[in-house]
Amino acid sequence: MVRGGRRPRPSGTREAILRAARRAFHERGYDGATIRGIAADAGVDPALVYHFYGSKERLFAAAMEVPFTPSEVFPALLEGGAEGLGERILRFFLEVNDRPGAGPFVALIRSASSNERAAAMLRGFMAWEVIGRLARALGVPDAELRATLVGSQLAGLAMARYVLRVEPLASADHDTLAAWIAPTLQRYLTGEPPTGPRP
Amino acid sequence: MVRGGRRPRPSGTREAILRAARRAFHERGYDGATIRGIAADAGVDPALVYHFYGSKERLFAAAMEVPFTPSEVFPALLEGGAEGLGERILRFFLEVNDRPGAGPFVALIRSASSNERAAAMLRGFMAWEVIGRLARALGVPDAELRATLVGSQLAGLAMARYVLRVEPLASADHDTLAAWIAPTLQRYLTGEPPTGPRP
Repeated sequence: MVRGGRRPRPSGTREAILRAARRAFHERGYDGATIRGIAADAGVDPALVYHFYGSKERLFAAAMEVPFTPSEVFPALLEGGAEGLGERILRFFLEVNDRPGAGPFVALIRSASSNERAAAMLRGFMAWEVIGRLARALGVPDAELRATLVGSQLAGLAMARYVLRVEPLASADHDTLAAWIAPTLQRYLTGEPPTGPRP
Repeated sequence: MVRGGRRPRPSGTREAILRAARRAFHERGYDGATIRGIAADAGVDPALVYHFYGSKERLFAAAMEVPFTPSEVFPALLEGGAEGLGERILRFFLEVNDRPGAGPFVALIRSASSNERAAAMLRGFMAWEVIGRLARALGVPDAELRATLVGSQLAGLAMARYVLRVEPLASADHDTLAAWIAPTLQRYLTGEPPTGPRP
C-alpha cells in the first residue's frame, strides 16, 4: 500500500522522508505535523511526498508501521451497514494483529504506554482519522463517545491478548472472541443510549 | 494497609524487603518468587516478612504500589451477589484510578507494555490473584475466559482514559461510563454463553 510509486526512486529518499516524518509526528503531534514541513526537513519537494504517500494519514501509517490506513479500511467495514458492524470491526482487528510477526499495533501501544509524546501522537491520529471517521459514519449525537468506547475494548483486547498474553483470552479463537466481544462493540456503536444507573 | 507492624522497625528493613521483593518478582515472576527467598535476599527472617506483609499478595502490592489487594477487595465487591457486580467492579476501578496523583495501575500498564519481564510478572499476579479469584467466585465452566474479558475491557478503559487520554472518554463522568460499560462487564460475568456467530 505504501510502495508503489510508478518510477522507482532511490530508497534513500523514502528513508529520509520517513525519518523526517517520525521526527515531525513525535515533535508536533499528528495534527501539528505538515507534509510541507516534513518535506523541507527531508530536503525534498512536498510534491514528492504526496507522490509517494498520497496523504498525511498514509505517511503516518508508513512511518509508524501502522498496518492499515483508516481511510482505506473504513469504507469496506462500513459497506455492510450498521448490522454486524461490531463483528466486522472485531474480525478485522484480530486478523491484522494475529498475523505472524505482525504486532505493529502492539508496538504502537508499547511506545504510547512508555512515552508521553508517542501517546500524544497516537491520540492525535486516533482523534482525527479513526474516531472522527467512525463518528461521522455513525451520525448520532454521542458518536465520539461511542467510538472511544469501541476503541477502549479493542485496546484492552490488544493489551490482554498481545502484550500481557493472559490466558485463556490470548489463545481464544476468532469465533469465540467474536461471539463474546462483537456484541459489546455493536452495542457501543448502535445500541440505545443507556439511561444511566438508578440512584 | 502496608504500614502497621505493631512494633516500629527501622524503615531500612522494610526498604530492604521491598527491594528484594521487586528483584524477585522481576526475575522469577509472581508465582516463582517466594517469601523465603525474598527474606534471604534481604537478610531477614521470613517470619519478619510475614509479620510486615502477611502474604505474598500483599508484599507484591506493596512492592509494586498496586493500590489494592484482590483478597481484600473482592469479598466486598462480591458481597452483593451477581446482580450489579459489573457496575460495582467498574465504579471501584474508576475510584481507584481517578484518585488525584494515583495512576498506579497506569504505571503498571506502562511498565508491562515496555518490558517483557514486567508483563510476565503482571500476568502471573493477575492469573493467580485476580482471574483465579474471580473465576472461583463465578463458579461456571468458562469463568476464566469471562474474567479475562472483564480484564480486557478494564485494561482498555485505563489505556484510553489514563494513558492515551482520548476524549470524550477521558473526561466522561463515572455515571456515564457506568451506564455504558457496566452492562458489558455484567454480560461477560454472568451473561448467557454466546452461541457463536452464524456461518
